[in-house]
Amino acid sequence: MGKKKFVKAITSRDEDFAQWYTDVCVKAELMDYSEAKGFIIYRPYGYALWEGMKNYLDQAFKKTGHDNVYMPLLIPESLFLKEAEHVEGFAPETAIVTVGGNEDLQERLIIRPTSEVLFCNHYAKVIESHRDLPKKYNQWCSVVRWEKTTRPFLRGSEFLWQEGHTAHANEEEARKEALDILDIYDDLGKDLLAIPFITGIKTEREKFAGAVDTYTIEALMHDNKALQSGTTHYLGTGFAEAFNINFQDKDGQLKSVFQTSWGVSTRLIGAVIMVHGDDSGLVLPPYLAPVQVDIVPIMSHVEGVMEKAEEIKNALEEQGIRVKIDDTDKSPGWKFSESEMRGTPIRIEIGPRDLKNNQVVLVKRYNREKESLVIEEMIQSLPAMLKDIHEAMYDQALKNVEENTREATDYQTFKQIIEEKGGYVKMMWCGDEACELKVKEDTKATSRCLPFDQTPIGEVCPVCGEKAKHLVYFAKAY
Amino acid sequence: MGKKKFVKAITSRDEDFAQWYTDVCVKAELMDYSEAKGFIIYRPYGYALWEGMKNYLDQAFKKTGHDNVYMPLLIPESLFLKEAEHVEGFAPETAIVTVGGNEDLQERLIIRPTSEVLFCNHYAKVIESHRDLPKKYNQWCSVVRWEKTTRPFLRGSEFLWQEGHTAHANEEEARKEALDILDIYDDLGKDLLAIPFITGIKTEREKFAGAVDTYTIEALMHDNKALQSGTTHYLGTGFAEAFNINFQDKDGQLKSVFQTSWGVSTRLIGAVIMVHGDDSGLVLPPYLAPVQVDIVPIMSHVEGVMEKAEEIKNALEEQGIRVKIDDTDKSPGWKFSESEMRGTPIRIEIGPRDLKNNQVVLVKRYNREKESLVIEEMIQSLPAMLKDIHEAMYDQALKNVEENTREATDYQTFKQIIEEKGGYVKMMWCGDEACELKVKEDTKATSRCLPFDQTPIGEVCPVCGEKAKHLVYFAKAY
Repeated sequence: MGKKKFVKAITSRDEDFAQWYTDVCVKAELMDYSEAKGFIIYRPYGYALWEGMKNYLDQAFKKTGHDNVYMPLLIPESLFLKEAEHVEGFAPETAIVTVGGNEDLQERLIIRPTSEVLFCNHYAKVIESHRDLPKKYNQWCSVVRWEKTTRPFLRGSEFLWQEGHTAHANEEEARKEALDILDIYDDLGKDLLAIPFITGIKTEREKFAGAVDTYTIEALMHDNKALQSGTTHYLGTGFAEAFNINFQDKDGQLKSVFQTSWGVSTRLIGAVIMVHGDDSGLVLPPYLAPVQVDIVPIMSHVEGVMEKAEEIKNALEEQGIRVKIDDTDKSPGWKFSESEMRGTPIRIEIGPRDLKNNQVVLVKRYNREKESLVIEEMIQSLPAMLKDIHEAMYDQALKNVEENTREATDYQTFKQIIEEKGGYVKMMWCGDEACELKVKEDTKATSRCLPFDQTPIGEVCPVCGEKAKHLVYFAKAY
Repeated sequence: MGKKKFVKAITSRDEDFAQWYTDVCVKAELMDYSEAKGFIIYRPYGYALWEGMKNYLDQAFKKTGHDNVYMPLLIPESLFLKEAEHVEGFAPETAIVTVGGNEDLQERLIIRPTSEVLFCNHYAKVIESHRDLPKKYNQWCSVVRWEKTTRPFLRGSEFLWQEGHTAHANEEEARKEALDILDIYDDLGKDLLAIPFITGIKTEREKFAGAVDTYTIEALMHDNKALQSGTTHYLGTGFAEAFNINFQDKDGQLKSVFQTSWGVSTRLIGAVIMVHGDDSGLVLPPYLAPVQVDIVPIMSHVEGVMEKAEEIKNALEEQGIRVKIDDTDKSPGWKFSESEMRGTPIRIEIGPRDLKNNQVVLVKRYNREKESLVIEEMIQSLPAMLKDIHEAMYDQALKNVEENTREATDYQTFKQIIEEKGGYVKMMWCGDEACELKVKEDTKATSRCLPFDQTPIGEVCPVCGEKAKHLVYFAKAY
């Protein structure tokens, strides 16, 4: 009975995907809305997902020679206005402090929407010689961008992220940095999130305000829309020139530094929900899951049941597995539903009958496979089981991408696929922004990226008939 | 020559302690000033110190059942105004957002100076029953308090901190939580910072705006001034009543929750600098030090020197020790000075002559002890050496506290000690705020805390001559 009520509370994905998404965010207790419109509360379970990603990335950044720093929250308006393209991109969405300590401020202060200008201003002070390069800094913080329509994790007026900012002595090294970080992001998908990303370069129209080139990781959601999940930017010398970040090179010449910036955010939580989730709630990939195994004791008052549950928990924890026993006074059915809603990869049920047979019932969340296993064997095989689940979830997501990536060599077919099927459509493109815009106006699909593998699938741009220059992934996107 | 120039750059502690402090902050590259007055940049070395403290505390909080969350940066003004005492304390120092997305906001938004009201508002929503208690949440973030005079780490318009907020079913459990966390803070001093804290309760005058009781850890700096280094608050039911945080207890009654809040900040970096530093710069306790051993190769072009340095580094790292080889083209003297400035606990020098004798020169930063050691023995004894240094630094700091803690049983003596010697003065107090104020006006000393050990040292309050109620630690403070 309890179970029914609980499950009913979620809209099904096919009925209303947007509502399903919001339901999962709230019911799995990932977040809550705050009193400030567009600002959300990251509840313990949601924050734990972010911590998992953060730990993975922080280690990878440190291993590759990056230092963490912390720049101020507020940027004087005059500093913010220094790089023209950048300002144009971000000024309309800023939140501005005008009062401090009960007094009107002489200069308005912008809450960082991103911190390029702060890093640049600092780099101009501390970089003098080629000996000071490269500088590879990262910071973990929140940023504020005033958004009109917001959705939990996907688009908010405040979000948590990391932003890397680096300065190098030459273009080659800076471009390599932007691509190396893209690899780290891609690995995060493979190792932790079980999400296969499409990687490539953004078009001029879609790139970051102030970048020469923007590289991207794109993921495909269950509703066949794409989600830009992280970007790295090769900034060239534009910021360096605006901020006078110069260094004396080995040849004695004074030169501008070559820069990059890059970031991923709590948006990745949204990706995990929409790639793996189902009509019973969240489905978490095992290495990301804050709890990997939920143990539900059945008839826990019967002698031996709780003891055995504890024993199993300890044995699993000794193998480094994250385990929780649900010893609340809720009904088993209710506990199952909650465990499913929270997407715990494995649920173990143990009751008096199991105890007698020295076994447990084990249910895998992602495919609902249910089996009875002898306790010792189950304990021994659990690490491999988590690995198998991770791989199966990744493969399933990859299969979904492959099945929903189509090619179009004429524009009619392109429009038809976008409208009827969604997903990625690969199409050649002349490189003219007019064609890119036309696609968007006609179909609401946008260019997601120019994939690194540019093997052509035709010779002309199907939109205008002119000679094609690039292969592009198009998709409707979040 | 390089060395001379480098060392000259620091003011000595006795000459001008405030200037010495600022010099160390800047020259050890812990921080830099930003373009927004009162806001600082945490450079890699400074941030690494904070990360060390953060990792220690985060583990301790998690081990004791606390969950990390993240609350919004901005608080609607109407929400902020809900608890009267709290508002009175914080309103004068707030920074206020009045513009968002190019439009004047209908309601002003306060940048969090602390997040009690956000946690309370959330707790009111998610707490219904005794089953939902306790709630033990913590968050790592920055807060903004508009300060007129600022000093790096000690007092800034923005600082990094953790803020814990908990809700409990009864007073006993909440008070225990506030004291348990105080113990964790105290352990941080003992285990990581090598700082002995005085612990106790704040007077009414000095307590947190909105608290029933504030507990504190106080440290004594080299200039004999005290630094309030962290506080935990028992909040009673005041916030719960203002925010309607009610729960149905086991007896069926609807009751208000009992709350705590607690925090330490990057101010602790200031404490480490001022407790341990000397005229050559920072002196870091070994378990906190981002780099525990600096290896300086002498005549590194000579065959075998760099190889041996690398070999030693690897052998030490295998023992979990954090090591850095300074392989820059600076002179050895310059490298020594830099290592001293950065406070690395141990410096190892290795040159061709050492190589021949299979030994190194090892210098301890905190007492400048210098010795030649056989390489294998040095490697083997290094973990124990770090432990000894930690303990010696703690003992030295404790000795300093003991030598500078005096008792006064008459007010004349009290004033004389405060004026001539500084440090802590223990004195009995009647409990009347008038006497506490008089002490402050006469001497600039403030009550630091009522220590937990209240063994009386007299029967009257030396200020007014009335019957004494409490033993108090007084001191001039930051």
